[in-house]
Amino acid sequence: MVVVMHETASEENIQNVIAKLTKINFDVHRSTGVNQTVLGAVGDKRGLDPRELEVLPDVYKVVQITEPFKLASRTFQPRDTIVKAGPVTIGGDKLVMMAGPCSVEGRDEIREIAEVLANAGASVLRGGAFKPRSSPYSFQGLGEEGLRYLSDAARENNMVSVSEVMESSQIPLLLEHIDILQVGARNMQNFSLLRDLGKIRKPVLLKRGLSATIEELLMAAEYIMAGGNYDVILCERGIRTFEKYTRNTLDLSAVPVVKKLSHLPIVADPSHATGRRDKVTPMARAAIAAGTDGLLVEVHQNPEEAMSDGAQSLYPEQFQRLMQELDIIARAVGKTW
Amino acid sequence: MVVVMHETASEENIQNVIAKLTKINFDVHRSTGVNQTVLGAVGDKRGLDPRELEVLPDVYKVVQITEPFKLASRTFQPRDTIVKAGPVTIGGDKLVMMAGPCSVEGRDEIREIAEVLANAGASVLRGGAFKPRSSPYSFQGLGEEGLRYLSDAARENNMVSVSEVMESSQIPLLLEHIDILQVGARNMQNFSLLRDLGKIRKPVLLKRGLSATIEELLMAAEYIMAGGNYDVILCERGIRTFEKYTRNTLDLSAVPVVKKLSHLPIVADPSHATGRRDKVTPMARAAIAAGTDGLLVEVHQNPEEAMSDGAQSLYPEQFQRLMQELDIIARAVGKTW
Amino acid sequence: MVVVMHETASEENIQNVIAKLTKINFDVHRSTGVNQTVLGAVGDKRGLDPRELEVLPDVYKVVQITEPFKLASRTFQPRDTIVKAGPVTIGGDKLVMMAGPCSVEGRDEIREIAEVLANAGASVLRGGAFKPRSSPYSFQGLGEEGLRYLSDAARENNMVSVSEVMESSQIPLLLEHIDILQVGARNMQNFSLLRDLGKIRKPVLLKRGLSATIEELLMAAEYIMAGGNYDVILCERGIRTFEKYTRNTLDLSAVPVVKKLSHLPIVADPSHATGRRDKVTPMARAAIAAGTDGLLVEVHQNPEEAMSDGAQSLYPEQFQRLMQELDIIARAVGKTW
Amino acid sequence: MVVVMHETASEENIQNVIAKLTKINFDVHRSTGVNQTVLGAVGDKRGLDPRELEVLPDVYKVVQITEPFKLASRTFQPRDTIVKAGPVTIGGDKLVMMAGPCSVEGRDEIREIAEVLANAGASVLRGGAFKPRSSPYSFQGLGEEGLRYLSDAARENNMVSVSEVMESSQIPLLLEHIDILQVGARNMQNFSLLRDLGKIRKPVLLKRGLSATIEELLMAAEYIMAGGNYDVILCERGIRTFEKYTRNTLDLSAVPVVKKLSHLPIVADPSHATGRRDKVTPMARAAIAAGTDGLLVEVHQNPEEAMSDGAQSLYPEQFQRLMQELDIIARAVGKTW
Repeated sequence: MVVVMHETASEENIQNVIAKLTKINFDVHRSTGVNQTVLGAVGDKRGLDPRELEVLPDVYKVVQITEPFKLASRTFQPRDTIVKAGPVTIGGDKLVMMAGPCSVEGRDEIREIAEVLANAGASVLRGGAFKPRSSPYSFQGLGEEGLRYLSDAARENNMVSVSEVMESSQIPLLLEHIDILQVGARNMQNFSLLRDLGKIRKPVLLKRGLSATIEELLMAAEYIMAGGNYDVILCERGIRTFEKYTRNTLDLSAVPVVKKLSHLPIVADPSHATGRRDKVTPMARAAIAAGTDGLLVEVHQNPEEAMSDGAQSLYPEQFQRLMQELDIIARAVGKTW
Repeated sequence: MVVVMHETASEENIQNVIAKLTKINFDVHRSTGVNQTVLGAVGDKRGLDPRELEVLPDVYKVVQITEPFKLASRTFQPRDTIVKAGPVTIGGDKLVMMAGPCSVEGRDEIREIAEVLANAGASVLRGGAFKPRSSPYSFQGLGEEGLRYLSDAARENNMVSVSEVMESSQIPLLLEHIDILQVGARNMQNFSLLRDLGKIRKPVLLKRGLSATIEELLMAAEYIMAGGNYDVILCERGIRTFEKYTRNTLDLSAVPVVKKLSHLPIVADPSHATGRRDKVTPMARAAIAAGTDGLLVEVHQNPEEAMSDGAQSLYPEQFQRLMQELDIIARAVGKTW
Repeated sequence: MVVVMHETASEENIQNVIAKLTKINFDVHRSTGVNQTVLGAVGDKRGLDPRELEVLPDVYKVVQITEPFKLASRTFQPRDTIVKAGPVTIGGDKLVMMAGPCSVEGRDEIREIAEVLANAGASVLRGGAFKPRSSPYSFQGLGEEGLRYLSDAARENNMVSVSEVMESSQIPLLLEHIDILQVGARNMQNFSLLRDLGKIRKPVLLKRGLSATIEELLMAAEYIMAGGNYDVILCERGIRTFEKYTRNTLDLSAVPVVKKLSHLPIVADPSHATGRRDKVTPMARAAIAAGTDGLLVEVHQNPEEAMSDGAQSLYPEQFQRLMQELDIIARAVGKTW
Repeated sequence: MVVVMHETASEENIQNVIAKLTKINFDVHRSTGVNQTVLGAVGDKRGLDPRELEVLPDVYKVVQITEPFKLASRTFQPRDTIVKAGPVTIGGDKLVMMAGPCSVEGRDEIREIAEVLANAGASVLRGGAFKPRSSPYSFQGLGEEGLRYLSDAARENNMVSVSEVMESSQIPLLLEHIDILQVGARNMQNFSLLRDLGKIRKPVLLKRGLSATIEELLMAAEYIMAGGNYDVILCERGIRTFEKYTRNTLDLSAVPVVKKLSHLPIVADPSHATGRRDKVTPMARAAIAAGTDGLLVEVHQNPEEAMSDGAQSLYPEQFQRLMQELDIIARAVGKTW
């Protein structure tokens, strides 16, 4: 931590800050310049709120010099984490395609689309069973039945499954059926849920909150990892901006930023980010070109009839064509499917 | 719902939209202008995703003509809701002051500050027992013990208590001890929690999410009310903006906006919004001047030693002076303490 | 400037940074902690882009320890600036009301409203003659004629005038007629215009950009002051947020923040911020309660017929009632009209 | 325009709205539903402020059913505009690379880098001569001399030139030397400048404002086109978001959105968007994959010594490697360099 004092700071107030820092076990290095005094404080106090120092008299600025996350940091682990879910790996040189409908709508429906997706090259089957809809009057999902249908459809097609967990009480049910547990954007800072997911031993797909910074996303990953579960896959799914023509704004620069700060894999979800089918294909291509480890894409055999998010679901043919375009782009970034 | 077709829309595509609307039980009024066809659709389908129409060929724009919330709307209930918690009322012409430390730190500490606050005019005692900190390495609260201390200190001073509930499993514990259950900003769209709070019969203080719109805040209230619990108090606590000199930006225009759209009471929390003690007093004054029904303010007998959020806690003397200033402003807006 | 090196920084890369800093005439204090090396750099290089250091190998973070503005800073001038425009003062213990229509629409119209406003207590008459409308198809203002009408109406009512300058070539014309030159939100970073306004000797009313930070607002003031014109009045007029029920979000916390950082006076414009007449009164009250030095409010004798911004213009009676309410609030903050 | 009345609207207030609409020459179609009355208004009043209707009693919502821009719209011109600057075309199936240093720093420096860029495949040479720096204490550019150096270097390497115009008075100078005039992000809504650029007959490269929506960008283009200059090239250069690890957030979804709404070409500037050299390459690749018509990239032969924006300038070797990667991606989207 570096504490910069005001140009006009009194010696008494400088000593006051030094005393406070010493009291909480920091080593303090004082550096007195022509205009200003700067205090370098070294110690291990990750939980300290820098504002406690900022409100002291004559303090101009407090700067944290260590990232607030540790386990998620590339400084802690320089080599890329490769998450394993059954035979599927996420991270490294091999790209992963996670695809499926927004909601599991029935046994036959999920089977049918799973076969199409597997044939086109997807290895993870997605589908929601508990739907955290923003209106209490919307379809809320099939529940456990949906999880079973999803799991069966995945296994029959040599895929693994991913589905969203909305609250801690659902964890045992998901563990029984599902290979990768997804945390939705609105729950990214549901710290109780994150803490409980730290205790399980299956991979967690963690979606970035609608207006979370990358640092907050990595702090959320840290919550899970601090519990002992290191298999976290990050997911960029669009942030809220002033733009109204898209549902959210896919922040693809998050990809190279995360790659530099962290060893965790990161995938992108162009379906939720754009909210419109015709924007999914260009943004999926762009995500791979930017260096993501894979994609999460909504596909439905009959989007007009989808029970949720039909507007952003690709038709099967669109998905097949996309996979071909992505094959070419993968080569440009030195990866394979 | 109003569906505006493209200027160049074909008759076939117009008929296609009419068919879709009819299928989902809307009455359709067609209005064909010189340049464009506009379809007015009347029906009760609150859960419909407008994007399902927007992706149809030749649709230019879809406009919802009813608010997505109903029970929270002033159209539904024209007169102001006055929430009762013991002898305290929130809403109407009487202002309410909710004050206390960020966290309950001990039995004596909360007693001491409660007495100060009650003497200065506060009627609701706040204090956290479960702390949803953004770092897993920070102080996490006293738990049930904290709830008991808070409740005792409130009762001894003829106050009622408010404390945050972080997850559904904590609800029974809070119901046993606490008068008003608070939903934190990060949980504003934790729909499982909201649904469960709809089943209880104690007031809920619902904080606006960090980047939630007012419509989303009212939709969250609707979730609770749809379960049968109509005693919802809204709380403006600052939204995320680009400004860095304050922690968040207190959006006081939310107060007159909510007053027009809804019958629910709304209070403001200048402590979390600004994050700095010296900004709390001016913003507290401004909130009352803007027409809030009350305030939620952090006060600590010794902010430098506070276990959390000391930087934004007022000293007892500052709080007493604030109450005097607010007395004058209350008169300007026709209210009393 | 403080340069924090990575935990794993090599000695070579540390020396490289020291060499770069020394080359640009900084004195460097090195502080080597257990985990990290921190370099304190002292020197006068306000124009240095910190990113030039951030991209050097093994640099973790670069922190500026002086504000980028100097003349606008309270460190530079501790006592409040009081700007004079004829007999009117802005800043200090006396509040100022600037009011008038959005656009000057005609000689009689501006005269009529000026009389009403002066009688109610306004001392500055506002009105636009060059309208920077976001659509090229909207009313663009009366030009020089409008300036003359505005100036005459102000003088006849013992008021001074304020009007917007859109480009440098208009400066001479405004200087001839107008007492305070206004820079609109969209021009806040039109650095050519700011530079030219630094050369004049009349006060400048500088509006905060729609998504400018307070630091950027003060940097814009610095541009004007660096040219020798110290009479800058800042104006908070709402920032862009995700909220849709208001046109912009009036950031009243900017008031105490500016008061701490700078000696310049600051007023608020609740009309442009909210965009709706019924929100202007509560936000005007809140602005005074938050500590502004005055207000800029749109009033029109017949808002339904206004040629621009009628929706946000108060009726004369509303304005008179507002002035009465503000009288009471002024007392709470120790000021007078 | 569609005006939706409140559910409880009185007949008198409905008639009042109809009268207002009729007065401003709209044809009104009334549609009375079970709950609500909807008024469809057809007419040509692009400049009308919808708030003028919204503030009328019992009006619930006003919806514009035509885009506020016309000349820039794909409805107005369905086929892609291909802008010509000398032998270079922008738009269509051929991609364009615009590259060069942030500022022109000297005759030899610009010549040297121009040769490198031309050999690697760039056809437009960029370089600033008037620098709109946010600090008044930074390097402000070489002025006319810089324009001449840029123009000479471009011609000697069979390239065309692009440079920024900061104010109307500079237009003649730029017209004399430069092939494409650039409007910077901070000037996107400098309507005086846009109006004057509508009168020239050279292409304009219009950068999106830091927090402008796509609609506002297209409205700014409309301003130029309304003056008769149809050769507008749009440029996505990053928007302001809450993310701090990048300077701005490159909004690549703007590319497919603009392609659908407008016939104008759009390029991306990953250098200003990210502000960091190591993020430029992935985002440049992503931009081409998303469907842009080209790129604007900063390259410097010696970035550490650059007089401005060195941190975001590529090294020549990085640029050459980027061009090779982009060759592959161009194929995936059916384009060529």
